[in-house]
Amino acid sequence: MLGTCIENVRKTVPLVHNITNYVTVNDVANILLACGGSPIMSDEPEDVEDITGICGGLNINIGTLNKSSIEAMYRAGRRANALGHVVLLDPVGAGASALRTDTAAGLMKEIRFTAVRGNISEIRTLALGSGTTKGVDADAADAVTEETLDAAAGFAKQMAGNTGSLIAITGAIDLVADAEKCYVIRNGRPEMGKITGTGCQLSGMMTAFLVANPDAQLEAAAAAVCAMGLAGEIGWSRMQEGEGNATYRNRIIDAICHMDGETLEKGARYELR
Amino acid sequence: MLGTCIENVRKTVPLVHNITNYVTVNDVANILLACGGSPIMSDEPEDVEDITGICGGLNINIGTLNKSSIEAMYRAGRRANALGHVVLLDPVGAGASALRTDTAAGLMKEIRFTAVRGNISEIRTLALGSGTTKGVDADAADAVTEETLDAAAGFAKQMAGNTGSLIAITGAIDLVADAEKCYVIRNGRPEMGKITGTGCQLSGMMTAFLVANPDAQLEAAAAAVCAMGLAGEIGWSRMQEGEGNATYRNRIIDAICHMDGETLEKGARYELR
Amino acid sequence: MLGTCIENVRKTVPLVHNITNYVTVNDVANILLACGGSPIMSDEPEDVEDITGICGGLNINIGTLNKSSIEAMYRAGRRANALGHVVLLDPVGAGASALRTDTAAGLMKEIRFTAVRGNISEIRTLALGSGTTKGVDADAADAVTEETLDAAAGFAKQMAGNTGSLIAITGAIDLVADAEKCYVIRNGRPEMGKITGTGCQLSGMMTAFLVANPDAQLEAAAAAVCAMGLAGEIGWSRMQEGEGNATYRNRIIDAICHMDGETLEKGARYELR
Repeated sequence: MLGTCIENVRKTVPLVHNITNYVTVNDVANILLACGGSPIMSDEPEDVEDITGICGGLNINIGTLNKSSIEAMYRAGRRANALGHVVLLDPVGAGASALRTDTAAGLMKEIRFTAVRGNISEIRTLALGSGTTKGVDADAADAVTEETLDAAAGFAKQMAGNTGSLIAITGAIDLVADAEKCYVIRNGRPEMGKITGTGCQLSGMMTAFLVANPDAQLEAAAAAVCAMGLAGEIGWSRMQEGEGNATYRNRIIDAICHMDGETLEKGARYELR
Repeated sequence: MLGTCIENVRKTVPLVHNITNYVTVNDVANILLACGGSPIMSDEPEDVEDITGICGGLNINIGTLNKSSIEAMYRAGRRANALGHVVLLDPVGAGASALRTDTAAGLMKEIRFTAVRGNISEIRTLALGSGTTKGVDADAADAVTEETLDAAAGFAKQMAGNTGSLIAITGAIDLVADAEKCYVIRNGRPEMGKITGTGCQLSGMMTAFLVANPDAQLEAAAAAVCAMGLAGEIGWSRMQEGEGNATYRNRIIDAICHMDGETLEKGARYELR
Repeated sequence: MLGTCIENVRKTVPLVHNITNYVTVNDVANILLACGGSPIMSDEPEDVEDITGICGGLNINIGTLNKSSIEAMYRAGRRANALGHVVLLDPVGAGASALRTDTAAGLMKEIRFTAVRGNISEIRTLALGSGTTKGVDADAADAVTEETLDAAAGFAKQMAGNTGSLIAITGAIDLVADAEKCYVIRNGRPEMGKITGTGCQLSGMMTAFLVANPDAQLEAAAAAVCAMGLAGEIGWSRMQEGEGNATYRNRIIDAICHMDGETLEKGARYELR
């Protein structure tokens, strides 16, 4: 099932509009190409509606937001909603500054997101900030561990139910939930945290997976998370002596470039809760 | 002849001012260094005239244009024209949005470009948008193939004549034309399309080649196209098992870094039409 | 002693706020992760004070400055000063345009910098522009060579005394000075000049070293310079046939990723003047 999701990306070559940060944008573009998608970047308010219009999905990442790009996020988001397109939010740094928190919360109020992907702190900030899950279990505020897993999965499902968006919380253990089901995913390597932008890359790739699999949205999001983690494992297995995070970055994208449905199907490690 | 063009870049180390997109800018800078040039990036309207003034050439790429950078493009372009500098336009996404089409067309009207480099769709949009080639053969709208080659070469020459700019149309087969002659170039690999920014990199490098070869502008532009395609071939020949588009990107720039005149002369595959 | 400085970075994982150019920002983020720090990028004036507040250090790089980011530099700089944080200035292109020179000089007047790192031309421009060292020895204007070394070291110490900032002048020979002492550093490879952004990377890394070593600021700055040069040597020793500047870039960051205190201690080549 998850294997089919990446095959559908390669078959349909979804065009993804990215309003994303300038730190990791090149890697986002290359991983989108690697998985079979096609990236376009545009963050000028007067340009984004046209660009979103020709794409199948929109990936909004607030990593280096500014006044102009924030306006672009709203305009592109509204257009994407009007067209029924996939829209994903990556609330980078929500909780770290008032502008980031307010922007993410404001976008959540005004735009219908197909999926929201972030780390536990960012997602928790959003849950609180948007007022949807004020009673969130305090355990969910911590890193997702085997001990806090049930509480975290419950939080993810609750937030998915409240927001109507798929919720993807990535970390040592990854969670991908709709209101009913939560994928608990154990792919990946801790060394991925030493590379800038693996989260941003995943958000771009997840958008492509969602566009290419309209009838299996939860599975598509989970497949993207498994693919990224599995690429981290494959890339790591190919590391040679003396190689570090810069080369590892390339090896991960390379692994996505070669990943077929069968590899993903066999390598994905997940359970449902 | 083409080999001399890259040698002249290495001898004269042309300084190139790039107003370019933030997606591929790092690769543009590194390929400019690899071929023997020297890159400077600046897109603030109040900064660009000074920066253009100290450079030999200006590379304008509208890939992530915004209101401020558009103003910078006009200001830098006018200054470069006043100084008699090489100016190149890469109309990324012309045809994909009104702002991109209008910006590219507006720049074409107001700035004298030494060369314009894009894919067939972008160049065709410019040809129509600028009103210079309204009767363009419909075949030229398609991908350049062996079947459409004569029509496409004719279109490129006609547009070069109408605009006074060298026209470089890159794809599976590349064309580089002035009003009289058209280089038909068959270097390159299809896998280059899986890397973001090979076109942007070529535009940066072509600007350096044009600056370094004032008396052989058409040959310089063609040499840059051959060099990029040949680097794609050399880089591909060095790919190891499991490597994908991220590593391929590095191997292409590495190949430019090692390319001398003799390698380019021997590896360039072209004919004149 | 210098070895301890990198170990302190790995122990304390300093969070560094970077207002930096979009050309080399990804490499800056990855080298900060490689050395044990943690990067955040933000250049929106309304965001930077919050972000600086949660960080230990601020790295200001004017490489692709614009009106908005210039305002952000001042706001973040003032906040960092108020909080007693480390602040570093990388005056990219000072002397190349009026806006760059004025911005760097203006920042020097209004913000107290812990350190300023640039090439000799940029630093000399700042010295003159800020009016602190009008009589600077003309020899210091040239590249730092064995012949001009004493004059250059004297200039660096004088400027450090006048500005109250550590002064790091990098080139074939690197200088890192406070008012009393000047480290003369001979690590590095000439091929590093063919990679875009080794200077920007060093500035980011130096900020992390300064944050992690509050009681040994001069040594921390010198250690960062030695680490970068040594990584250039180690990375170069690992280059394989056909590899060029794109791969070299990765190998340098990889070398930082693996560098421990002992390696740095043994590999650092410096004297005090």
